[in-house]
Parts: sequence; structure tokens; C-alpha cells
Amino acid sequence: MLSTVTETLLMGPGPSLVAQSVRDALALPTIGHLDPRFIAIMDEIKAMLRSAFATDYEMTMPLSGTGSAGMEAVFANAVEPGDRVLVLVNGVFGKRMAEVAGRLGATVSTVEFDWGTPVAVEAAQAKIEEGWDIVALVHAETSTGVRNPVEAIAPVVKSSGALLVVDVVTSLGGLTVPVGGWQADFVYGGTQKCLSCPPGLAPFTVSPVGMERLARRKAAVPNWYLDLSLLTGYWKGAKRSYHHTAPINMLYGLHRALKNLQEEGLDAAVARHRAAHEQLALGLESLSLEFLVDPEFRLPMLNAVRVPDGVDEAVVRSRLLAEADIEIGAGLGPLAGKIWRIGLMGESARPHHVDRLLQALRKVL
Amino acid sequence: MLSTVTETLLMGPGPSLVAQSVRDALALPTIGHLDPRFIAIMDEIKAMLRSAFATDYEMTMPLSGTGSAGMEAVFANAVEPGDRVLVLVNGVFGKRMAEVAGRLGATVSTVEFDWGTPVAVEAAQAKIEEGWDIVALVHAETSTGVRNPVEAIAPVVKSSGALLVVDVVTSLGGLTVPVGGWQADFVYGGTQKCLSCPPGLAPFTVSPVGMERLARRKAAVPNWYLDLSLLTGYWKGAKRSYHHTAPINMLYGLHRALKNLQEEGLDAAVARHRAAHEQLALGLESLSLEFLVDPEFRLPMLNAVRVPDGVDEAVVRSRLLAEADIEIGAGLGPLAGKIWRIGLMGESARPHHVDRLLQALRKVL
Repeated sequence: MLSTVTETLLMGPGPSLVAQSVRDALALPTIGHLDPRFIAIMDEIKAMLRSAFATDYEMTMPLSGTGSAGMEAVFANAVEPGDRVLVLVNGVFGKRMAEVAGRLGATVSTVEFDWGTPVAVEAAQAKIEEGWDIVALVHAETSTGVRNPVEAIAPVVKSSGALLVVDVVTSLGGLTVPVGGWQADFVYGGTQKCLSCPPGLAPFTVSPVGMERLARRKAAVPNWYLDLSLLTGYWKGAKRSYHHTAPINMLYGLHRALKNLQEEGLDAAVARHRAAHEQLALGLESLSLEFLVDPEFRLPMLNAVRVPDGVDEAVVRSRLLAEADIEIGAGLGPLAGKIWRIGLMGESARPHHVDRLLQALRKVL
Repeated sequence: MLSTVTETLLMGPGPSLVAQSVRDALALPTIGHLDPRFIAIMDEIKAMLRSAFATDYEMTMPLSGTGSAGMEAVFANAVEPGDRVLVLVNGVFGKRMAEVAGRLGATVSTVEFDWGTPVAVEAAQAKIEEGWDIVALVHAETSTGVRNPVEAIAPVVKSSGALLVVDVVTSLGGLTVPVGGWQADFVYGGTQKCLSCPPGLAPFTVSPVGMERLARRKAAVPNWYLDLSLLTGYWKGAKRSYHHTAPINMLYGLHRALKNLQEEGLDAAVARHRAAHEQLALGLESLSLEFLVDPEFRLPMLNAVRVPDGVDEAVVRSRLLAEADIEIGAGLGPLAGKIWRIGLMGESARPHHVDRLLQALRKVL
């Protein structure tokens, strides 16, 4: 049934369209995970990831799982039983962070904000200053289309002495993600959003402060597969030692996607996402469709659009897919049935794609 | 530096050669992970995996990580703190099982056998009958080239009342792996060995007895990413719900690799691995090279060959790669420097590849 797979315009919450150059890279011949040529490719991936994260953190590499494996890796490595973790929650992915940390033995507290609104700095500040081992939040909340003000939260967390964890799965490559400027300690992304690579890897970076914390752990990391101290032996140093067999061809794809980003330039990519969002917003206005989120906190790459009264949102999505080969996303949790999620990520964030979606929406509505 | 990647004859411990049809599948357009066409592809993968595992277990699917993630998933789901786990160890991967289970809170015991020899049934039997929650062993020990007699161990474990865990990473697709016949409860494989797909996924199957054990868990699984109860919601049933974004293109590749296996026939694939091994053994004999393992317990797909006195094994491997574009593997742990590991896995297990390796070895030695 692979014959059913045809080019679809992916304008949901990810995966996004994948460039032909990345697809070609995926299909290159597999070579060994300890082959000197592959080690050189790994080193280039690390360097290009540092640029994308805008940091010089030595411990920067892709993990062998999807973005959610990145989240798992943060808490599996950073949490020791009883650690106090605060999560600022305003959507599915903040909730998920709290769930993951709790399962790993943390004592978890949350501050919750209405879905569709950003984390409010003043409310968060009071709670952060109570003192925590770890404070975590999502930069781009994929479930609601909200950009959280990490730039305002980060200094509060850092002066409190807590480690700062930031999820940039949806923002990486489409918004500026100044990990070094935030002084964030554990940050993870995904490949299938603004990097326009298929899903399967989690770009990951850890600050020197974060690495010191890991070095002081008393208990072994309760996840051998994602244990950063073991992964370091494969990703770093003169002599690379086998840990698990790296996903070779996926890493070819990531290399090519990062190269594409480098050639375009990060600032240009950010501007392109912004322009696609503005084009979409104008078009939606002409269709009398409304955004869930206030303009100041809207994500360019994930647009949460209210479903008009009396419209069956699932029918609209099915018709877009069947009649126009376009995928958009549904709402999650309390927003199910109430919003569509229109993604403008990576290769999908181009003017002719936005035009095509707007025309199809006009026809279907 | 992707331009350095050229076709290399992979005859190490994995990855193996990948067929062009699988590489083409990897490069198909990415579609959504909830697209009805993709759900149909998932269902076909599950059915083909059941054939490869020779079982009808409902809970059969690929996990979104490499074979080592399969091992992690077994113990993360099956172990509750304090559970008594016995691992039968005769190589790196048995040791790794003990390490993983211990990190997850199990009380772990091992019975150790000399590397290069199989698990001895009588010695294991006495220990198994002491009574355990879980007994685990590796079918094809990739670090030594030994086939363990799972067919003789399995009945002992099952009558003891313990859950049976078997690692078939290296045997799946190249030896008969009768999971249903063994009544094994948790079994995981890899894609990059005899299935000839790139690394990145872990074929996985759980018996009904194993699923009952999971349903009775008191504590949440300490690994959200690999929690089988959550993964079931995405991989099973009429309504599929989002857990994590599946690695779409890797799953295309696995689908194609399983289809190739189905078209050849599992028995024919097993016979082909056997024939390639016999061809290699004859050739090695003519070069006066010796096997580490006794004939009865040799794996066809992983041949541990003693390095002759006075030969620098690393130089031989480097020259094979540089001069003949052939990769073979080094020894691990106590066997480092003492053996080569010659893989005959999947697409690599063909007569002309064996010929090419033997000619190159003759030249280099």
C-alpha cells in the first residue's frame, strides 16, 4: 500500500513538507555507524545544530527518537527522585512535561494558564521564586498556537538557581531560539516541524551547568537508551565508542535539512515563516475566520483558527485532504472540535502553498 | 560531506546492506501520522511483523527507536521496583539487559557463561527453577556469534511461571524466530540486521500474558515515550489517537523491507543466510582462519573469526574499508582485538558479496 503515498501539502501541526534534497539524502547508501565518514557527518550535524540553537554548548546532538524522546531524555537525566520540578502549563505539551517528570520520580507542581493565552510572567515569577530544582516551559505550544515569553521567564528562573528546561520542538528553525541568550540548561527540538525533515530525531542541547548537574547524580539514569553520559562516548571525543546503532539514514536527512537552513540563513527562514503567517492572516480575515490567540503571542508556524458556529470541523479537514491533497490539524484536549491548527512550517511556509490552502478553504467552507 | 557517502559492502555486525527498493521507500513523500493512508500502512506493518515473529500476538508493532530502545521498552514496561529478574548472560547484549533492568529498579541476578559458548541448559535450569518474575536471554548474541538454545530454555522458563524475554535483534529475518512456539512474552528486534532496513526502529511483540501483567501494574511506567499502554492507542483500534509523531519515512522503509521478506519467503531467507554462512566458512578455512564458536552454536548471520597471531586486526579492517569498500566489525569487551565479526545479514548475505569479501581478505592478509 506504499503506492497510496502521494505528495500531500502538509499544513498541520507537523510533519511538514520535506524538501526533495532531504528525501534524496534519506535514500543515500547506508554506511557503518563507526565509519570515519559517518563520524565526520555527525560532527557537522553537531556544529549546524549549535547554530540553529544559537548556542556554543558543547553537548549538542540529535537523540535517536522523536521530539517526545527529547522531552523524556531531559527529565530522565535531570531528575533525581524527590527533585522539585515546576512546569508552566498552557497546553498539551506543558501538561506532558509534568506527566513525564512525575513518572520519573519528581515532585511536580504546575502553574496553569488558559489554553490560548501565554504564560503570564508576573504570576509565574512569584511561583518560580519559591525555589525549585527545575523549571520547565514550552516555547511554541503546538496545541494552541501560543508563543510563550521565554525571554522574560528565563532570567527569573536563572536568578532563582533552578535549571531551565525549554521545549522548542515547534519553534526551532522558524523562530529565533536563543538558547545561549536564555542560558537555558536542557533544550530539545523536533525535526518534522520547521526543519522540514521527517520525524524521528530530537535535536538536543545541554548547558555546562546542566552537565555539571548530571555529573553530580547519585542514582544511575533510569533510561539506558537516553543516558547522556553514555551517549557522549559516541558523539564526542577522539575515540568514538558504540552505544546504540545510530539511525544512519535519518541523520543523513537531518544533515541535509540543516544545510538547507544554513544556506537560506536562519534570519531569512524566520522572516519567511513570519511572512507566510501574515499572508495567511490576511486571507483568513477575508474568509471571516478568527484566530484563537491575541496577535502579540501568535506563533507564525502554528495558527489556531476558530471553527465557525455550525461547521463540522472534521468534515472540512477530510474534504481538504480528499479534494485538495491538503492536511490541516484538529484541536486537542479542550480545544477539540473548536479550532483547526494550520501549520506553516519549513518548506510548507511558502507563498504558493498559503495561496493554495486559502483557495481550497474558500471552496470547502 | 554527504558527498563522501558511497555504496559500501556492509559485512559487520549491522547495519547491513539496504536494498534499493527500501531506499526508494525512505524517500517517498512524507504524509501525516493520522492520515488514513498511513494508518493502513501501519496495519500492514503489524501483520507482516507477526509473520516475521511467527506469532499471532495482537500487540505487535515497531517502536520509534533502535533495537536498544526495544530492550529499554521491555524492562520499562515489565519491571516494577523490586521485581526479581534473571538474565542468562554470554555476551554484551545479555550484560546490557541486566544493566537496563537494574536501572529500572529490578533486583537482578545473572548466570554467566563464557563468551563464545552458548547458555548451558542444565546450569540455567537449576537457576530458573528458583523462581523469578522475569527471565531474559539473547537469541543471537551479536558480540560473540553464538546462537543460544532458546527452544530448550523457553519451556523451563514458562513452567517456572516467569515471563520470558528474548532479544532477537540479530536473528529476526535470518533465523526462524518462533515467538509463538516459544510462548515468549516480550520480544524485540532491530531493523538494521537481517531485515536490511536502516537502523531506527525496534520491531516488538508482547504475548497476552505479558499484556495482562502490564494491566496489573501498580506504578506508572517510568518512561512515557515507550509506555505500551499509551502506544496502543495509536497503533490499535478503530480510532487512533496521537501519542508521539511516528517516524513516517522510516516506517515506509520497514514496510518495504518486510514486503521484500514476504516475497522471498521466510524459509527461503533463512536458507539463504545459512548458505552464505557455509560459503564463508569454506573460504575462511582455505585462508586458515578459525571460528570462535563451535559449529553447532554458530550464528549464520554473525561470524566471530579469530584474529591470527601477529596480525593487527584494526589494520585489516581499515584496509578492507579503504581499499575494497568493505566493512567488517571488531570484537567487543574481552574479545576486542581477538576476533573480527563478519556479518552476513539480509542483503549482505548473497554469494557474490561473500566472494568479494573472501577475495579482499586474501589480498589484505
